[in-house]
Amino acid sequence: MLIECIPNLSEGRRADVVTGFADAVRAVAGVRLLDVSSDASHNRSVLTLVGDANGVEQAVLALFERAVAAIDLRTHTGEHPRLGAVDVVPFVPIEGITMGECVALAKRVGAAVAERFKVPVYLYEEASANPARRNLEDIRRGEFEGLAAKMASTDWTPDYGLPAPHPSAGASVIGARMPLIAYNINLATDRLDVAKKIAAAIRHSSGGFRHVKAAGFKLQDRGIVQVSMNLTNYEKTPIFRVFEVVKREAERYGVSILESEIVGLVPSAALNAAAEFYLQIEGFRPDQVLENKLRSLNAQL
Amino acid sequence: MLIECIPNLSEGRRADVVTGFADAVRAVAGVRLLDVSSDASHNRSVLTLVGDANGVEQAVLALFERAVAAIDLRTHTGEHPRLGAVDVVPFVPIEGITMGECVALAKRVGAAVAERFKVPVYLYEEASANPARRNLEDIRRGEFEGLAAKMASTDWTPDYGLPAPHPSAGASVIGARMPLIAYNINLATDRLDVAKKIAAAIRHSSGGFRHVKAAGFKLQDRGIVQVSMNLTNYEKTPIFRVFEVVKREAERYGVSILESEIVGLVPSAALNAAAEFYLQIEGFRPDQVLENKLRSLNAQL
Repeated sequence: MLIECIPNLSEGRRADVVTGFADAVRAVAGVRLLDVSSDASHNRSVLTLVGDANGVEQAVLALFERAVAAIDLRTHTGEHPRLGAVDVVPFVPIEGITMGECVALAKRVGAAVAERFKVPVYLYEEASANPARRNLEDIRRGEFEGLAAKMASTDWTPDYGLPAPHPSAGASVIGARMPLIAYNINLATDRLDVAKKIAAAIRHSSGGFRHVKAAGFKLQDRGIVQVSMNLTNYEKTPIFRVFEVVKREAERYGVSILESEIVGLVPSAALNAAAEFYLQIEGFRPDQVLENKLRSLNAQL
Repeated sequence: MLIECIPNLSEGRRADVVTGFADAVRAVAGVRLLDVSSDASHNRSVLTLVGDANGVEQAVLALFERAVAAIDLRTHTGEHPRLGAVDVVPFVPIEGITMGECVALAKRVGAAVAERFKVPVYLYEEASANPARRNLEDIRRGEFEGLAAKMASTDWTPDYGLPAPHPSAGASVIGARMPLIAYNINLATDRLDVAKKIAAAIRHSSGGFRHVKAAGFKLQDRGIVQVSMNLTNYEKTPIFRVFEVVKREAERYGVSILESEIVGLVPSAALNAAAEFYLQIEGFRPDQVLENKLRSLNAQL
C-alpha cells in the first residue's frame, strides 16, 4: 500500500525549524521523506512523503506537534496565502489503496489533530461532504487574519474542533485528492491572446472541463505562448481529451501545437489512457502492463 | 533486478514430467515460477519465470538436469518444431538490468549447459554475434532429425560444446531478446485481401519494419479482418508508428480501423512512447512516471 502525502507548513525561512520537520518525519517507521522544498519569499515548506496509512498518519501528527510549537502565525509574513501553521495536508492514493480509504484516513487524522493539538480542521476536496467547502481557495480565503470572524459564521464551522482558531497555529485543511498533473502545451505563435482564449475555453472556472485549471502565458525567451494547466482528476478529465480540444481550438486561429510538456510527475495510468485512446485499444486491463503483472504475481507468491 | 525467462521444453504430454519441471524451478531461491503452459499436440511446455540473474541461471540449469534425464527426442513427436529437450531459453530484461547484461547471462548459461550436460548450445537474437544465426527459425530449421548433418557444416558449429548433437537431448538455443508485444488491428471490412496486403506492407520479411512479423486473418464470427502482429522490439519499431502506417494503408482501400488489441502483456515504456508521440510531449523522462519515481526513491532510501 502506497499513499503520497504533501504537508504544506508555514515556515520557509528558519532552516533549523525546517530541518526539525524533516527529522520528525524520518523518525517515523513505515514512511519515507522524498522531498523538502522551502521558499523564503512564500515563507512556506512543502514536504513530500510516502508510506502506508499508519506511517503517514503518524508522520503528519509528528509534524503537527513540531509546527504548533515552532510557528506563530501572529508574526508570520509571506507571499503565499495560509491559515494555519500546518496549512494543508492532502493524502493521495498511489497504489493498493482507494480514494475512499484516503478519505477515511483524512478524517481520522483531522479528528486526532483537533483533539490533541486543539487546532480546528476543515476537510477538503474528496474528504469534504459539502460542495461549497471542497476547494482549498474557498476555505483559505481571508487567511489566518480573517479566520476568527470566518469561523464564527455557521457556514464555516470546522469539521473537527471548536469554531475558534488556535491562537498561534490557526486552523488546518486536511483532505484527499487525486494526483495533480502539471501539463503545458506550447503553441507555435507569439500571440498571447490565442493562449488566453484557449485557456478560458478549457478551464472549469469559465465553462470548460471540470478538472482543468488553465492560464495563458508568454514564453518571452522563445517567442511563443503557452497554455499552462493543472489537471486535477486525470480519470475524469483525461490528458488526451484536453490535448485534442486545445489542438482544435488553436486551429481556429490558424495556430498549431509545437509541443507539450509534463512538469514533474504523472501517474502511469494517465499515460496508458492516452495510448489506449490514440491506438484505439479495446478491452485493455492494467494487469496487461508487464511490470504491473510481474509485480503483482511476485507479491502474491 | 528483474529478468524474465521463458524456457520452452519438449514435453507436453506426461503431466508428472511437467510437474517435475515446475518443482525444479520452485526449489531455487531468487526466482518465481509465474506460469506453466503445456500443449499436448505440440508436445511442448512453456514456463515463465522471473528473478535476478543468479536465480534464473540456477533455475535454467535445474531444468536442464531434469529435461536431459526425462526427454528423449529420438522418440518425441509433436506438431511444434524443436531441436532439443530444452529447446529454447530466452532471457528478457525487465527492470534494473540492461540487454547487455542479459546477453552476458545467456553466454554464461550456454557455456555451463555445454560443459555440465554435454548439450551443444546456439546463441540467438541479441546474444548472437552472427547475423545469419540470430533468428530462431533459421537455427531450428531441420529440427532434431536433421541436426547431426547441420552441425557438421562449419556454418553451424555451435557456440558452446562439440559439433555433434547430444544423443537424446539434441541441442539448445539460448539467448536474450526484448519483450514481445502481440498486437492486432481489426479493420472495419470483411476483405481479407486488404488485411493481407497491409500485413505484407508492414512486416520485415516483405520489406516493412525491421521488428514486425505480421499476417492477415479473417475473424469469421465478427465478419471482419485482422492484421495480426508480433512486435519484436518496441523501442526500435514502436507501436504508434506501426498503427499509423496500418491506418494510412487501410485508407488507401477506403477502410478504417475498428479497434486494436494487445494480447497478453505490454511493457509500460511501449505505452508511454505512444502517449509521448500523440501528445507531442517533449523531454519526457521515465522517472517522471509517478510510480517509477516513488519506487526508485523508496529503494534508495
